[in-house]
Amino acid sequence: MKHVSELKSFREESAKVTWVNVDGHGDQETFSQMGEIFGLHALALEDVMNLHQRPKFEDYGETDFVVLRMPLMTPHLDLEQVSMFVGDGFLITIQERPGDCFEALRDRIRKNKGQVRRRGSAYLAYSVLDAIVETFYPVIEHYGDQLEELETRVLANATENVVPEIHAIRHDLRALRRAVAPTREVLSSMARVEASDPQDNTHIFLRDCHDHTVQLLEALDTNRELASSLMELHLSNVSMRMNEVMKVLTIIATIFIPLGFLAGLYGMNFEVDVSPWNMPELRWRYGYPFALGVMGLTAIGLVFFFRSKGWLGKGS
Amino acid sequence: MKHVSELKSFREESAKVTWVNVDGHGDQETFSQMGEIFGLHALALEDVMNLHQRPKFEDYGETDFVVLRMPLMTPHLDLEQVSMFVGDGFLITIQERPGDCFEALRDRIRKNKGQVRRRGSAYLAYSVLDAIVETFYPVIEHYGDQLEELETRVLANATENVVPEIHAIRHDLRALRRAVAPTREVLSSMARVEASDPQDNTHIFLRDCHDHTVQLLEALDTNRELASSLMELHLSNVSMRMNEVMKVLTIIATIFIPLGFLAGLYGMNFEVDVSPWNMPELRWRYGYPFALGVMGLTAIGLVFFFRSKGWLGKGS
Amino acid sequence: MKHVSELKSFREESAKVTWVNVDGHGDQETFSQMGEIFGLHALALEDVMNLHQRPKFEDYGETDFVVLRMPLMTPHLDLEQVSMFVGDGFLITIQERPGDCFEALRDRIRKNKGQVRRRGSAYLAYSVLDAIVETFYPVIEHYGDQLEELETRVLANATENVVPEIHAIRHDLRALRRAVAPTREVLSSMARVEASDPQDNTHIFLRDCHDHTVQLLEALDTNRELASSLMELHLSNVSMRMNEVMKVLTIIATIFIPLGFLAGLYGMNFEVDVSPWNMPELRWRYGYPFALGVMGLTAIGLVFFFRSKGWLGKGS
Amino acid sequence: MKHVSELKSFREESAKVTWVNVDGHGDQETFSQMGEIFGLHALALEDVMNLHQRPKFEDYGETDFVVLRMPLMTPHLDLEQVSMFVGDGFLITIQERPGDCFEALRDRIRKNKGQVRRRGSAYLAYSVLDAIVETFYPVIEHYGDQLEELETRVLANATENVVPEIHAIRHDLRALRRAVAPTREVLSSMARVEASDPQDNTHIFLRDCHDHTVQLLEALDTNRELASSLMELHLSNVSMRMNEVMKVLTIIATIFIPLGFLAGLYGMNFEVDVSPWNMPELRWRYGYPFALGVMGLTAIGLVFFFRSKGWLGKGS
Amino acid sequence: MKHVSELKSFREESAKVTWVNVDGHGDQETFSQMGEIFGLHALALEDVMNLHQRPKFEDYGETDFVVLRMPLMTPHLDLEQVSMFVGDGFLITIQERPGDCFEALRDRIRKNKGQVRRRGSAYLAYSVLDAIVETFYPVIEHYGDQLEELETRVLANATENVVPEIHAIRHDLRALRRAVAPTREVLSSMARVEASDPQDNTHIFLRDCHDHTVQLLEALDTNRELASSLMELHLSNVSMRMNEVMKVLTIIATIFIPLGFLAGLYGMNFEVDVSPWNMPELRWRYGYPFALGVMGLTAIGLVFFFRSKGWLGKGS
Repeated sequence: MKHVSELKSFREESAKVTWVNVDGHGDQETFSQMGEIFGLHALALEDVMNLHQRPKFEDYGETDFVVLRMPLMTPHLDLEQVSMFVGDGFLITIQERPGDCFEALRDRIRKNKGQVRRRGSAYLAYSVLDAIVETFYPVIEHYGDQLEELETRVLANATENVVPEIHAIRHDLRALRRAVAPTREVLSSMARVEASDPQDNTHIFLRDCHDHTVQLLEALDTNRELASSLMELHLSNVSMRMNEVMKVLTIIATIFIPLGFLAGLYGMNFEVDVSPWNMPELRWRYGYPFALGVMGLTAIGLVFFFRSKGWLGKGS
Repeated sequence: MKHVSELKSFREESAKVTWVNVDGHGDQETFSQMGEIFGLHALALEDVMNLHQRPKFEDYGETDFVVLRMPLMTPHLDLEQVSMFVGDGFLITIQERPGDCFEALRDRIRKNKGQVRRRGSAYLAYSVLDAIVETFYPVIEHYGDQLEELETRVLANATENVVPEIHAIRHDLRALRRAVAPTREVLSSMARVEASDPQDNTHIFLRDCHDHTVQLLEALDTNRELASSLMELHLSNVSMRMNEVMKVLTIIATIFIPLGFLAGLYGMNFEVDVSPWNMPELRWRYGYPFALGVMGLTAIGLVFFFRSKGWLGKGS
Repeated sequence: MKHVSELKSFREESAKVTWVNVDGHGDQETFSQMGEIFGLHALALEDVMNLHQRPKFEDYGETDFVVLRMPLMTPHLDLEQVSMFVGDGFLITIQERPGDCFEALRDRIRKNKGQVRRRGSAYLAYSVLDAIVETFYPVIEHYGDQLEELETRVLANATENVVPEIHAIRHDLRALRRAVAPTREVLSSMARVEASDPQDNTHIFLRDCHDHTVQLLEALDTNRELASSLMELHLSNVSMRMNEVMKVLTIIATIFIPLGFLAGLYGMNFEVDVSPWNMPELRWRYGYPFALGVMGLTAIGLVFFFRSKGWLGKGS
Repeated sequence: MKHVSELKSFREESAKVTWVNVDGHGDQETFSQMGEIFGLHALALEDVMNLHQRPKFEDYGETDFVVLRMPLMTPHLDLEQVSMFVGDGFLITIQERPGDCFEALRDRIRKNKGQVRRRGSAYLAYSVLDAIVETFYPVIEHYGDQLEELETRVLANATENVVPEIHAIRHDLRALRRAVAPTREVLSSMARVEASDPQDNTHIFLRDCHDHTVQLLEALDTNRELASSLMELHLSNVSMRMNEVMKVLTIIATIFIPLGFLAGLYGMNFEVDVSPWNMPELRWRYGYPFALGVMGLTAIGLVFFFRSKGWLGKGS
Repeated sequence: MKHVSELKSFREESAKVTWVNVDGHGDQETFSQMGEIFGLHALALEDVMNLHQRPKFEDYGETDFVVLRMPLMTPHLDLEQVSMFVGDGFLITIQERPGDCFEALRDRIRKNKGQVRRRGSAYLAYSVLDAIVETFYPVIEHYGDQLEELETRVLANATENVVPEIHAIRHDLRALRRAVAPTREVLSSMARVEASDPQDNTHIFLRDCHDHTVQLLEALDTNRELASSLMELHLSNVSMRMNEVMKVLTIIATIFIPLGFLAGLYGMNFEVDVSPWNMPELRWRYGYPFALGVMGLTAIGLVFFFRSKGWLGKGS
């Protein structure tokens, strides 16, 4: 298709459902023409061009307007905005970036062609929604795998600083939650709207899709709790390690500082010749062995003291 | 029974209630045949084969679809998916793994045969649900026992690193919560649906079963709070222990470092002969006892200082 | 009364209200006979014998079934299960243990005899409920007193390890909360049921009793927040104390380690006779006073450094 | 007025509104007489005498019963119980303590006399309620000021132990919250009741008063969050300070302990005369300068090591 | 315009919509005159003059009263109170401070003149509301940028004390939340009121504006979570750094304190001549190399001990 005005013919033809997919959000002119052709509300078109929308479902009378977010790993998490207009006989999807993310989708739809042909634009919209919701699964699994790998590392190596990694994962999980939680509301709103049509059972499919978002949210919450628990585990490791370091320092220092004092004592230069009171030990026959013995006993006493405190056990 | 098609006869016979129990989720062909025989919705059958469902209750018109999770200690916690179709005159249960977990159940049902015969498939479904809910009790008790044992250890031995164990228990408690909480909703939904039938009082039994899930959730929350409290207790122990280690280090270092300095002082080699200013103490008659006295007084002074700070008391 | 069957006569007589109080939960036979006489539902009787019920109110048509928990200090907190059947003209209470906890109750009722006589079983049930709710007051006050005493100790003595005590109190407060919170729901359910009877004003009394449970919950939450706050206060004390210990260690070590080095320096044995470069200070006339002076200046300099850091002030 | 019975005449006279203010809660006799004269419910009178009521609104048919709490700084926070009976043509207020807290109120009412005369007891009750709600403003502001002063101190002086003060403030903020939160509910209940009277617009005034309680709650929550944030800030200060202390200790100890070892090495007494292997450095011409040089290089090397670790920078 | 009374003429003229903008809140006289001219409720006028209102929407029959808060960076965050009266054919806005913050607004409105002319005061009110809500975007983005810059600093430099900055940002985010959250309620209330008018579609615009506040709240919550996460990251950095400092201290002290002891040992002055037991090593041919060897082996042994503990690895 060359020009947006050619869309008019599709609109006028009695095609069962027309699906228009627009890549990129730049061209305001195109959108206003499409707005005229399909009768789209100006506020909705404004939202399409503003890329900071949160997922929402809005009922503009004849046309329903849906905004969703689709996760992309590029390789950082990116949540592309996808806008949809669902009208009688047409579906317009607008993606944030050029590139065709819906190829797999279209394949799937081509295979289900029969059902999509028979059913109206609501079912097609469901198919697109379902495809978008499906894209969250591998992404969330990716973070789950990362967390499990982190858990293995935290449980094995007690001191590696995993906090920045956990920080980054939590950041992305929060972003995913902000994308999925309103998607769930979108789906329940749509299911409620569709349920009012007694002949159509699209709402059953939407309910199923809604269940998927509930599952996704639960998986996200599980991952977030795991991240918090890992943080706690890591901080406890750091604290235990510090404790251990302090204990080694204390044991060594507490044994050798007194011994060093004793050695220093007999290194004093008081003149033995001047008076019998000045360091007579230096001239004892067994002065040196006596000094070594005192040191040895001091060391053994301290080791027993530490053992009684439980600082030398294996478990502690 | 050899083949799934034989089920047809049961369906056609006027049996009061037919219970079909399927082990394993593999064979798509079997399920689609069963779907045709019993009129099961395609989306529900898809859910049966997808093993990541959360417990839910879905009303597909004639047939109700229930997904539950059943805990197994193998010996790690495993939450097996059990799917149920409850229709007019039949109950289909699908377990995740080969092996017959419902033997005890069947025994119980055989004993209550009378009531099950008289009542319809809803009562049978309740019996299965009740049996599944019952399996949570010993599992949660198991974690409660583990936590109580941990509590004893934490209160007794102040330094053992129990954090990984608490981490593992919390992980499992979270998984159990995610299985039990939606089960409660399933039961209240079913009770609401059944309550609309004035002749049947199955809803009273479902309400009782619902009460059990509330009890289970409360037990889970109690255990989770206990785990958090234990974590806090343990971290406080570690901190107290660290404090104690630091105090011993400080007391020993603070007493002996100054004493060591004094000993070092009189170990200096300033030549006494050169000048009367150079270390005259070395030639004093009581130089050595004087030095020892100064050291002793320093030590006693420091001990009194520590006592005034309250660092030598028992309780601190 | 000798035998359960004698109850039949009470049932048949036109007594205004019959109150049956059963101690202990053991005898299944007794309960099934009572169930027949008073028309009690089998599920309710099962709950009576299972001692892990949470407080609940169940409407079994003619008869209401209430489970409550009553606190006992024995001296550890024990929450005894009390079950009640409230029917037309009778009240059955079942206590967990032999022993007569309702003596005070019965006294109170005897004094209010008039009103109880005039009114029906609902008012009697209210009286029992009110008496049970009243028993929570002294127990919660007991924990409040314990916490206040702990607070005094934490504010006075900075280092005592109060964590296990706080841990124990929180454990009991959680247990009490789990008993009182559903009791509140029981009372509001009962008040709602009773309010539908325009001639009776028992619901006003039940509302009053409901207010008491709200008060109890608030007192519990206040105590729980106080416990958390105390924990925080204590941990901050421990941390401040550690800081102080570290500062003393640092000041002493930082002053005396350099001084010790200087003393060690002049304790070296380089031979002064060999060369004028070898430790000429040892032969200086004022070598020793010079060395002492250098040490003194070093010490004073470090003290000023610490003062500039604010480590020697009172407040810090 | 001398005696409670004289109130009867007011009741019987056709005064537009009678306001009875009772100080103290002691005299049961007075209350039961008033109960008879004004037709007050026994349960409400019991609540008046029990001083542990939480704010509540109760509809006893003809008479409404309101319990509120009024803050007093004496100088510790005290929440006095104020009970009100609002009936057709009368308002009874009962204060906890002797002393006339309503003087300002009465002045205000005298000035608005016109409106109060024209309007009924509901408007008078609103005036009292509004006056009570107003008394919370200065009290909450007082705590806000205290917190801001604490914030200045925490931001300036990093080590002062402000935890007990924060603990005390939080304690009072919790007490105030427990007084204000149910007051809000009281006002919305009263506004709902009054809104049903189409001729009266007292409910607009009550809604305004309700808005004030919402404002108070928000101010309380802001203060509570500020207190938590201050706690965090303080604990972070303590931790930073500890870090700094440790760094000074580490730098000094790490430089001087090796130097001290070197000095000690050349203080050993191995006899140089015995063998050329025994400490030949002691007889070198430049032995002493060489030793000093090694020490100097060691010290410089360690300083560079610390600088590379970023421990000597200003910012760290 | 010179005097408030001139407003009367606007009121009486059949202008489609009159917009009166008042700067500053001081002059009570002006407001009471305006109140008379436009029929404004006294309570609402009181609120206008009291600058501590939270955003709210109040329906005073003919006139709607709206209070909002508008953020200003001066350069500290300041939330100016803006009050609005929306009546039939008029809009009154009252700003807190002199100065014309609505210039951009007025420009925008002049451009949309057509629509504003055609539509009534509700649409004009929406335009003002929308403009106020828009002013929050750059402010919140400003804090988002600050937090991202802080994140970069925290991830790069592990020890800078960023807590006071985070504390300040959180303080402002809380203030913004308290301004935006009730604004959302104001907009949903207004949308609900306007939706009742079937001919007007202003409620679609209000819903759009409401969506913006939801977006703002989400952005605020994201920033608040990021601030908490940064705090955690920073504290973990501090803790890791402390651990590293302790490890260096421990390694140096643990190696050199025993070595120092050994050196001190051979610095003792026991007289070798007196007895063969007194320090015979001093006269050994290889006494000094032997002593050095023992020291070297001790050091190597300790280094291996530390390596086995994982204290010398890169990652730890």
